Order: sequence, then structure tokens, then C-alpha cells
Amino acid sequence: MKNWDLTAARAADRKDDLARFRSRFELPDGVIYLDGNSLGPLPVGVRERISELIDNEWRNSLIRSWNAHDWSDLPFEIGRKIAKMIGAEADEVVCVDSTSINIFKNLSTALQLRPDRQVIATPKGNFPTDIYIAEGLSKQLGGNYSVRLIDHEDPIAGIDDDVAVVLLTQTDYRTGYKLDMTAITQAIHDKGALVVWDLAHSAGAFPVDLNGAKADFAVGCGYKYLNGGPGAPAFLYVAKRHQNLVEQPLAGWHGHAEPFAFESHYRPADGILRNICGTSPILSMASLNVALDAFEGVDMQMVQNKSQALCDMFIDLVESRCGEFGFVLATTRDAGRRGSQVSFHHENGYPIMQALIARDVIGDFRAPDILRFGFTPLYLSFEDVWNAVEILHQIMESGNWDQERFHIRAAVT
Amino acid sequence: MKNWDLTAARAADRKDDLARFRSRFELPDGVIYLDGNSLGPLPVGVRERISELIDNEWRNSLIRSWNAHDWSDLPFEIGRKIAKMIGAEADEVVCVDSTSINIFKNLSTALQLRPDRQVIATPKGNFPTDIYIAEGLSKQLGGNYSVRLIDHEDPIAGIDDDVAVVLLTQTDYRTGYKLDMTAITQAIHDKGALVVWDLAHSAGAFPVDLNGAKADFAVGCGYKYLNGGPGAPAFLYVAKRHQNLVEQPLAGWHGHAEPFAFESHYRPADGILRNICGTSPILSMASLNVALDAFEGVDMQMVQNKSQALCDMFIDLVESRCGEFGFVLATTRDAGRRGSQVSFHHENGYPIMQALIARDVIGDFRAPDILRFGFTPLYLSFEDVWNAVEILHQIMESGNWDQERFHIRAAVT
Repeated sequence: MKNWDLTAARAADRKDDLARFRSRFELPDGVIYLDGNSLGPLPVGVRERISELIDNEWRNSLIRSWNAHDWSDLPFEIGRKIAKMIGAEADEVVCVDSTSINIFKNLSTALQLRPDRQVIATPKGNFPTDIYIAEGLSKQLGGNYSVRLIDHEDPIAGIDDDVAVVLLTQTDYRTGYKLDMTAITQAIHDKGALVVWDLAHSAGAFPVDLNGAKADFAVGCGYKYLNGGPGAPAFLYVAKRHQNLVEQPLAGWHGHAEPFAFESHYRPADGILRNICGTSPILSMASLNVALDAFEGVDMQMVQNKSQALCDMFIDLVESRCGEFGFVLATTRDAGRRGSQVSFHHENGYPIMQALIARDVIGDFRAPDILRFGFTPLYLSFEDVWNAVEILHQIMESGNWDQERFHIRAAVT
Repeated sequence: MKNWDLTAARAADRKDDLARFRSRFELPDGVIYLDGNSLGPLPVGVRERISELIDNEWRNSLIRSWNAHDWSDLPFEIGRKIAKMIGAEADEVVCVDSTSINIFKNLSTALQLRPDRQVIATPKGNFPTDIYIAEGLSKQLGGNYSVRLIDHEDPIAGIDDDVAVVLLTQTDYRTGYKLDMTAITQAIHDKGALVVWDLAHSAGAFPVDLNGAKADFAVGCGYKYLNGGPGAPAFLYVAKRHQNLVEQPLAGWHGHAEPFAFESHYRPADGILRNICGTSPILSMASLNVALDAFEGVDMQMVQNKSQALCDMFIDLVESRCGEFGFVLATTRDAGRRGSQVSFHHENGYPIMQALIARDVIGDFRAPDILRFGFTPLYLSFEDVWNAVEILHQIMESGNWDQERFHIRAAVT
């Protein structure tokens, strides 16, 4: 544990090789943004790209832009950029639909690859949409299909010969606990099952190596650490060895081998392409596509190192300066098992978070009692962390958060 | 048949009560846009709305905008606007996902409502994604489920006691043949089946009255006649009487009764809301939301009247001025059975369309031999129609289209 003060924080910033990337983002003055794991900030270049898209491509070229300005290629262009960040081949990733819908596709594919097994296993504390989609699919298929809720930190204990596929979010959205992708994938394969990795809190946060881990499937989110803008489309990964074996059920025309031949029966395209369904929302995709350029030349290992340093600093400071106020660390102290976030339990978590947000320290609250702080090394400094805890300390000492106690309403992701 | 010339066209424009709405769209100079049924042009106000969204809501308010700027309400706000245009109640329509995925949801719901029947019927010439999605769902469900291809212009002949649901595109995307929604819905109900109406070429093109027709389900497209921008999200309608009876399988967290309670099992929201799945692409949705304001104060009956007049004029002029060049009308002459488009067969349809586009008359080509022209009364004039045929006539007389004959590549929707 280091003895942090403002001087030490500023010294750490001066030595930080990632500090220069802050200029790739537009952050509002005075805001300390610890919620990039919910909605990333505006990357430089997005505004200009969207203006060009509206004023030239849509307005002037109209329908011709699908070819002339490569709108048709956006799902793949984005896929290629994300592939590099998650240890996949260029033709194993595509940008399409939402995370929820992509989970449905991947689970459907996995179940067909293990026809003698009928259980989808997923952690009981998994992000709700993961569980819900598994339930929706299982219910739809009927028969003996079911969803088994297992333990996030020890998923293997719940896997037996009935399990066809395990759906795991690598980084728990509440606690930030990060699973060892390589070891767990291996253990799942040893049990004869397949795995779908949800990378919502992984992609863009730290190095991910899907192929190194021999992963089967993955999905992830465009609007969190990838900074693609509100509700940016999601991505989907299928390992090459699985791509052409079965068809996923959302068999839309863009996944057809020849969409513009207008054939009267579905014939799936080869490769990752068969996971595309309808027409893509181009404005939102173009935003994500430019946003990803903020990662150009960024070493994800350096991102992880700085993330761990920022998180360690935050834990140290909250515990040393605010420990008396009842915060209980929800995140592991083991940096190797932690995503890029720190969470604390507090019985008054919601009003305290509202008070922080009112002071421009933006994190978020997750029921029932978690204050969640995301650390995004490309645009956060050590001084930001110092200031965030300073403001938390002021709020707790003054008791001002208490005024908001009875004005609780639903927080938003 | 009227004797059209440029003077008569201009006179018709002077008497046109819809002419003033052209100022609600930004059209490039010199372009005659007959492809608004593929991608609507840029409505006035979209650019400014998207700038505000990027510069203020995303950049400055960040995650807080989900509540502070009502991003969460966009699927419903858009749904309410579209509901008015298609004869639905405000709480029967929602903007979400793509048309393809919404067809999957509606078909899944319908099949559950007719558990003793296992056939999905849909016209053999239906838009491919409609057929493909029906096939994907049927294949996924296995057992005795199947897709039956019926006739578009006489769908009822193919319906028997095995048919659970009929999936019909009201306006055929190639011929423009428009089905009588009220009569056909009634006939389908008489056979004990349900109907999903695909309004891709209906919504925004002419008056639609889903509830008047006692329709069960509907889907439609945000980027065609609704002008929402490239790949704008789609919409979905479920008649109130069906909304709470069963669950659709794409059970994402946004369709949960309490998404932010993070419950560990899916519990569907009441009403249309359970058809939402993941997070919405906000840039694309905000664009569609503003685009719909171009219909404010517009009488859809007047739109239909002008559309019929423009289409009649186009048919007359092509046949009288270009009849010798081998164009065969693919669309019915009966304006009451016609959507807002005119199609002609021509053995050299593709290169002729390319030559037209090169002269800034933009329509599209649909395999195998259809030249398709969309007529959108809010921004097209009678003079535009005159000029379009004048240019077609010049191309055919000069034979210039022939140069492009051997450079055929896939056209884009």
C-alpha cells in the first residue's frame, strides 16, 4: 500500500505513458467519469464522421452509399477492429444487433453442436439479460431443455454431462471479479461442454485472447469500454471451427449466402456472416467504427497495468480516508482476478452515489447496495482518482448525501 | 389517360396541396429520387437533433442522459408516432431491433397462441427475409413445424386447419401489389389462423388501419417511407388482446417487468414492452424520431391520392413514350390494389437502371428483371415524373444503357 497524496498522484501522472491518449476523448470540464463501463465518453472524430455521414452520404448519395461509402462493410470493418482487441481472427467477429440477441444466436448454435445435452449453465449472479435470454431460449425449445444456475467464481463445480453450454460473463458486473478464461475454457471442454464468453466488461478494458484460450463463442458490448455511443451495436464471435456446422435460428436475409439474389429459401452464408440478420443501424455503427480508432497504437497490457494501479489506489484511499463510514469492498484485492472496476457495498449506496454524481463524480449504483466505479486508463488520471476520493470524503463527513436518502428512483445502466 | 406534357405537369404541381411538404426534406440538387421505398431522404431537423445528441447529451451529460434526456423513452415515443400512422393504439407499437428480428418475435408469439397448429404460411414471392425467418424459426422448433409457401395475390387459398399464422407483406416489394388488409385478415381469422402484417412498403406510404382490420401482429421498417436514416430500427405491433398471453423468446432485460431490479429470473413486462430485448441504438433511433415529424399535419389519404396520380402518370408516360422499347408493366393498373410504387419488367433491367442512376434518376433493380420506382408524394412533384420519363426516353433512344450491359454487379436494397 502506497501513501497517496495529491503530489504523489500528480507525479504518477507525469510518468504515465498512457496520459497522452486522454486527448482522444472529449470529456466535460470538471467531471470525473467513473462510469465508462456503462457508457463510454465521446471519442474525438465521432462528431465529424457522423456529420459527413448525414450531410454527404445520406443526404447526397442516398441509396448509393450502401456500396459507394461501404455501409455494407461496416459490420465486418468493426468486427476486424474488435477482433484485434480480443485475440480473434479478422473473420471470426462481426458487429451486429444487441448483446442479448447475440447471446441467443450463440447459445442456439452451441445447443445444436451438443444435441445429446440439454442444459444451459450460467452463474446465478450473471448479468440479468444473460440469464433471461438463456431462459427464453430454453422455454422456447421446450422438452427437457433447462437453465442451471451455477457459481460465478467456481463455475466448473456445476458442470456435468448434461450441460451443453456454459454462458459466462468474464467480469462480474457488480463485483468486478474476473474469470481466468484459459483455465475455465479448458475445464469446460474437459467436461464435454462449450462456452459462450460475455465480454461486456472485458473488451477494451484489458487484453483478451479468445483463440489463445480456445474459446468457442463470445459476445460483447459496443457502448461500454469501446465507447461507441449510447446503445451502439454489439459484437459476436464464433471460433472458425464452429462457423459452418449449424445454422443459427435468426436467419435473416443479410446472413444469406446471396442476399441480393432474393432466393426463395434460406441458404446460410459461410463463416461468421451467417450471424447477421437484418439491416444494420448505420448511424450507430459508424459512431462505433470511429470510436474504435481511439485504441489505435494502444498497448492493452499497458492499459491493464494502469487500470490495476488506479484500482489499487482507489481501494487504498477509500479504505484509508472513508473506512470509518461503512464501505465494504465488494471487489477482490487480487488485481489479477479483477476487471477494470472497483465496487463497494454500502447500506446507503444509492443516495451516496447520487450525492457523488451531484458533485460531478460519476459512477453508478447496482442493486441492492453496490457503488460501482469503472476505471478507464485512456482518459483517467491518478489525480482524478485522488479527487474522486476527496469528494467522497467530503460528502461522507458532511452527511449531505443523507438529504437525498428519500428521493430514491431507479438508476440507469 | 391524361395527355401529359411539361406544362400539364407544372399545372398539376401548382394545384398540389402536398407540394409545401417538400421543404421538410433535403434533397440533392438535380436528383429525381424514386427510391424512397428503399432509403428515405434526409428530413430537415435530423442533422440538428443528432448534433445536440452528440454534443450535449452524450458528451456532456453522459450516462445521465438515459433519464435526463429520455433516451429510455425513445422506443415508445417513436412507437406512439408510428401508431397514429398505422391505425394502432399508442401502447400497441414499439420501435425496436430490425424487421427480421421482429418477425421472429411475432411469429413465435403467434405459434404459441395456436399450439394445435404447426404451419407458418407465407407467400412464395414474399420478401426473402420474411421467408427465411419463418424457415429459421420452424427449423429451430423442429417436430412437425413447417413453412408453407402460398400465393401472394390469393393467400387464402393456401390456408387450412394446419396453419397457425400467415405472414403477409401487404405491398409486394417487386410488383407493388397491395393486399386488402381488412378482407384478408377476416378470411384468415375465419380459418382459425392469425396474421402478421409486414408493413415495410405500407407505413408512411398510404393509410393503414391495423385495428380497423382487426390485425393480430405487424412489423415494419424505419428507413423506407418513414425516412429514419440508413438501417433505422424497425417497429413492431401486437394487438392489445394478444399482448399478455405468452412470452416471446428473445427475452432480454429491457423486456423484463423491472429491468433495474436485476432479478435472477425473467418476468415479462406487461403489454408491448415485453417485445423489447437489449439496449437500443440511440443515434439511429433519435434520427428516426425526428424524421417522423415530417408527417406532422399530413393527411395520409391525401398522400395516397397523390401517390396514385403520380403512379398513373408514370405508367401512362412510360407506356406512351417508351412502349416501343420493351417495358412490360409488373404493377397492377388498379390503383386501389397498388402500393406506392410502379415496377416494369425489362430483359435489360439492370443496365437500364444503372444508366438512369448515372443521369440522377434513382430507382432500383430487383432480380431477375424488375425496374422499381417508388413514389413518395411528400417530396416528389408531377414535374419530377415528367422529367424522369424524359430521361428514360433519352436513354432508350440513344441506346447508351447498353454500354453498361456487361458491368453487372449486385444492386443494393
